[in-house]
Amino acid sequence: MTRIAVLGAGSWGTTLADLLARNGHEVRLWAYEAEVVESINSRRENTVYLPECRLAEGLTATSDAHAVLGGAGLVLCAIPSHAVRAVLKGVAGSLPEGLLCVSATKGLEPGSLKPASEVIGEVWPGARVVVLSGPSFAMEVFQGQPTAVCAASRDEDAARETQQQFATARFRVYWSRDPLGVELGGALKNVIAIAAGILEGLGLGFNPRAALITRGLAEITRLGVAMGADPMTFAGLTGMGDLVLTATGQLSRNRTLGVALAQGQSLADYTAAHRTVAEGVGTARAAVELGVRFGVELPICQQVSQILFEAKSPAEAVKDLMERALKMEQWR
Amino acid sequence: MTRIAVLGAGSWGTTLADLLARNGHEVRLWAYEAEVVESINSRRENTVYLPECRLAEGLTATSDAHAVLGGAGLVLCAIPSHAVRAVLKGVAGSLPEGLLCVSATKGLEPGSLKPASEVIGEVWPGARVVVLSGPSFAMEVFQGQPTAVCAASRDEDAARETQQQFATARFRVYWSRDPLGVELGGALKNVIAIAAGILEGLGLGFNPRAALITRGLAEITRLGVAMGADPMTFAGLTGMGDLVLTATGQLSRNRTLGVALAQGQSLADYTAAHRTVAEGVGTARAAVELGVRFGVELPICQQVSQILFEAKSPAEAVKDLMERALKMEQWR
Repeated sequence: MTRIAVLGAGSWGTTLADLLARNGHEVRLWAYEAEVVESINSRRENTVYLPECRLAEGLTATSDAHAVLGGAGLVLCAIPSHAVRAVLKGVAGSLPEGLLCVSATKGLEPGSLKPASEVIGEVWPGARVVVLSGPSFAMEVFQGQPTAVCAASRDEDAARETQQQFATARFRVYWSRDPLGVELGGALKNVIAIAAGILEGLGLGFNPRAALITRGLAEITRLGVAMGADPMTFAGLTGMGDLVLTATGQLSRNRTLGVALAQGQSLADYTAAHRTVAEGVGTARAAVELGVRFGVELPICQQVSQILFEAKSPAEAVKDLMERALKMEQWR
Repeated sequence: MTRIAVLGAGSWGTTLADLLARNGHEVRLWAYEAEVVESINSRRENTVYLPECRLAEGLTATSDAHAVLGGAGLVLCAIPSHAVRAVLKGVAGSLPEGLLCVSATKGLEPGSLKPASEVIGEVWPGARVVVLSGPSFAMEVFQGQPTAVCAASRDEDAARETQQQFATARFRVYWSRDPLGVELGGALKNVIAIAAGILEGLGLGFNPRAALITRGLAEITRLGVAMGADPMTFAGLTGMGDLVLTATGQLSRNRTLGVALAQGQSLADYTAAHRTVAEGVGTARAAVELGVRFGVELPICQQVSQILFEAKSPAEAVKDLMERALKMEQWR
């Protein structure tokens, strides 16, 4: 039994906290909103982010991050990518050297375009950082649907330790040495998910969707390899697996946005009508910038970016993608 | 304009013949069944294999293979994998050296376990053989849905020539140097499609499906690499792309069989009730045999094979897959 601190009580943080508590660990969950703390402690339910799911007994919540971290043998970070730096800065100074920090945060930090594990390493240099990612709708993990994910770290022992702490008979954890590839796959797939929504909104079929997923993965892989990741990581659970889940599973916010764009809504209209912006919007901008920085061609991300930010017609974008010069399947 | 001979008038052969005729080529289609020849020539429709689709004018059909091949500048082979050798043996002797032969046949020859391009090379050594494959439901290609496929050959010029002959604004053709990887992906994906049907039949969700597709691709890749293929081919259109199409698109025969197995039908019951057996049944047997021959672990193919041939319970098979020893994501 390990004492575990979970930072962030969104649906994914809450689900993993519950899974760890069921695995016999003592889990303390830090939530930003008082309402979430209150509902978890009094009703054993996160009424805001994971409603109608009864949480395990060994799980308590608080809004005091210092209290959560005291005496923890493992920290799970499930904070949105834009807030990781600020939250950890406030608490990292008091943490012991060599503590295992598992990041379940997806997405790149706005501005710096850094993945979460890099941000964690900067504000908390003493941590042994592991990235946990893979195709996993939180609700299905909560329901006990068979799920496979990946724990990645340059520190092999830390990755294997994470594997042991999280794995159950229904939550299978593989390990890998490529955290960068894992994080890039998890972030960039959201841009391709917007594109999948656009195809759906245009009324297109299964052939175009399969082509989009494959060619989308190809360009994510090219970018990742240019940035130093292992190409095979993108063919794994955190690349292809997560992309397939997001592009063919139930409608995500990113795909919903894509459908709306294809039906003629502008990003501004869509944003005005929704409380939260899909994560892929910022990632589309980041991808284009990273493509320029690393000299990598990203035709799909570029078209999505032009649809989002330059009011390009989705039908025109599909046509432009199909009519590019004929190529070899693998190119840099 | 090229004079093209198409051998095999199933839905895929007919669709490609129609596409080539629309590309301005003179296309002659060889069909095994007199009924198919008759309906194409008199009604411009393949009433048996592609009903309710009006075929292009430049397309004629015959049951005389010699007549089809006379003067052809390109041969497209779309014959089922078990019949390729017999059909080509009868005609190859009269064909000119260096003729381009594009194989759209998926699957391995029963007994020899050889992919179609290898069989073609044996009976017709003078041909320049190119493999054409990728995520493509025939009906969607006929409808003009944007589709991307791959033309693969060890002969780069032949692959590029095929690309030029087939490509349209809606049918995008990439080229590759790895015909073996392309053919193995196209054949082995049917075993994973049976497994996807089994998960559906058990009422499982999107997380398990994404895990299955990814881990299924991982084992196909391991086998392919052991047999001499390029690992990146399996992350492309003819590997991942075709697998995603078959496992998430409309119900194929392989997935339908999987659903029936999960609902308690035996292979014998299912076979008795259906005119044709799903291609993945033979391929599951072949995969296990190839795994032994090349010393590669294929846990999913093995479970599918045990369900098919040893009456193993599907629920038990899923449990056994999830409870294997925890592993690194990439292993040989």
